[in-house]
Amino acid sequence: MPRPPFEQTWNQSVRSFPVLRLRGETGKDTRDSLAVEEPLEIRLAFGPKGQRRQESLSITMRTPGHDFELALGFLFSEGLIASVTDVIGIRFYAGQLPEQAQSNAVLVDLHPELQLDWDRLNRHFYTTSSCGVCGKASIEMVRQTTCHFPRRGRPVVAPEVLFRLPETLRATQKVFEQTGGIHAAGLFDPTGQLVLLREDVGRHNALDKLLGAVLQQNRIPLSDHLLLVSGRASFELVQKALMAGIPFLAAVGAPSSLALELAEEYGMTLVGFLRDQGCNVYCGEDRITQENNTI
Amino acid sequence: MPRPPFEQTWNQSVRSFPVLRLRGETGKDTRDSLAVEEPLEIRLAFGPKGQRRQESLSITMRTPGHDFELALGFLFSEGLIASVTDVIGIRFYAGQLPEQAQSNAVLVDLHPELQLDWDRLNRHFYTTSSCGVCGKASIEMVRQTTCHFPRRGRPVVAPEVLFRLPETLRATQKVFEQTGGIHAAGLFDPTGQLVLLREDVGRHNALDKLLGAVLQQNRIPLSDHLLLVSGRASFELVQKALMAGIPFLAAVGAPSSLALELAEEYGMTLVGFLRDQGCNVYCGEDRITQENNTI
Repeated sequence: MPRPPFEQTWNQSVRSFPVLRLRGETGKDTRDSLAVEEPLEIRLAFGPKGQRRQESLSITMRTPGHDFELALGFLFSEGLIASVTDVIGIRFYAGQLPEQAQSNAVLVDLHPELQLDWDRLNRHFYTTSSCGVCGKASIEMVRQTTCHFPRRGRPVVAPEVLFRLPETLRATQKVFEQTGGIHAAGLFDPTGQLVLLREDVGRHNALDKLLGAVLQQNRIPLSDHLLLVSGRASFELVQKALMAGIPFLAAVGAPSSLALELAEEYGMTLVGFLRDQGCNVYCGEDRITQENNTI
Repeated sequence: MPRPPFEQTWNQSVRSFPVLRLRGETGKDTRDSLAVEEPLEIRLAFGPKGQRRQESLSITMRTPGHDFELALGFLFSEGLIASVTDVIGIRFYAGQLPEQAQSNAVLVDLHPELQLDWDRLNRHFYTTSSCGVCGKASIEMVRQTTCHFPRRGRPVVAPEVLFRLPETLRATQKVFEQTGGIHAAGLFDPTGQLVLLREDVGRHNALDKLLGAVLQQNRIPLSDHLLLVSGRASFELVQKALMAGIPFLAAVGAPSSLALELAEEYGMTLVGFLRDQGCNVYCGEDRITQENNTI
């Protein structure tokens, strides 16, 4: 099967607006760059030959750019596709949309042999974005769709490598540099080299874009990698990392209780407050070298 | 009609976990408080007498506490209810749920005369959380459900009042103080007095909780108030503020392009990067006093 052309040409992540800048008692009319936020509809074409149908799966508010990756990563992290071979094509969907919206809908052509129970899926997406009505049920739902359990003690990362990551991420964030307001997800190797970075106004979108990109490169499970997110670590981000087999999640901000419980359940390493040459290791300490350092 | 008892007794927003704290070359085993994240299911009972039915509307990941307000605020900001009199009762829904999940489902009893087209609603919630597939359509959808258009030039706020708000918010944030990682929405009067504060792991939940509280107090539209949010200003937050008639939204972080476009369309004041005795005023400058200050 030929590799589908999953490249995107259209891109506009930053837009300039007039602004009044107040500093103490002075004001100045100037311009400011903002991260673009626009809706993206993900549509699916699926079913065996002769019985193909098309349905709208979801709409998310996202920053334009890497939209095909976003769609792929979303489908993957929701457990709808397992590899890029489940997809035979992606394109922008013009449909009946007005011209300015034609970059805001993506049509994913799923493989005719891929099993997809649309009615069950419809109910699932309708009732929940995170599954279950108690923390335990949410964790249980992840178990049913995740096949990559991280291995203990691998990769091993030195604290000084860890402490460098936020600076590396920030220095590479093009949209953040211009706008000061966008989330990022960065994939690193155990020596602290940045492998891939994606940005979006939505924290989950940034990670979905990143996962979509590595899915296309057939690099999942990412069992020797670290993931750094620019904000807080929520349940949803831990879930997506687990889907991709990433054993190590670090966040510049705080984790939530359920994020920690899920990470712990899977033997992941979860690091929070990674900033100013320090961090908190909430679980999975075995992946951090500590030579005579622990008090 | 008797006022329904919309008080909540159960509350657990913060939980303590063991943590390894790394600072430079030293590590220390200690404990850390995390913001609790748990799913909340919102269920509706609706329809005329004799034809009542019950359906699950949504599940959101939230920080427990003020759950009835969250449900009310969500229903209000989604345009499903217009006032607290559309609701005849709210309670936790035990149903068939396991014991630990019984605080994670809320049943809202809607007034028998409230019109609710469940099938249309179902489709709406399913396809989108933010409506429309282009920015213009998103803005248009808000117009269809919002009845409060802010008045020009009111309230008027002095820059020095504005600059004080983040400190006031932060000083009052109980959960943030303990966890360092939670969103807040604060309602202020034009003199900078904090009227109400709500916190949540989800930015939209914090605002929904706040709106649910003021809805119960019959204080909507809040046409003489300011809203401060701890993070960035997204389209969704501007939309919710508009639903409550709040004419002035300030954010500690950056706005998105679509947040600005929506605020501008409605003549709202949108302020971003409110920190360190400064801010950016993106639109609605008429609500900020500037005596001979503008360069």
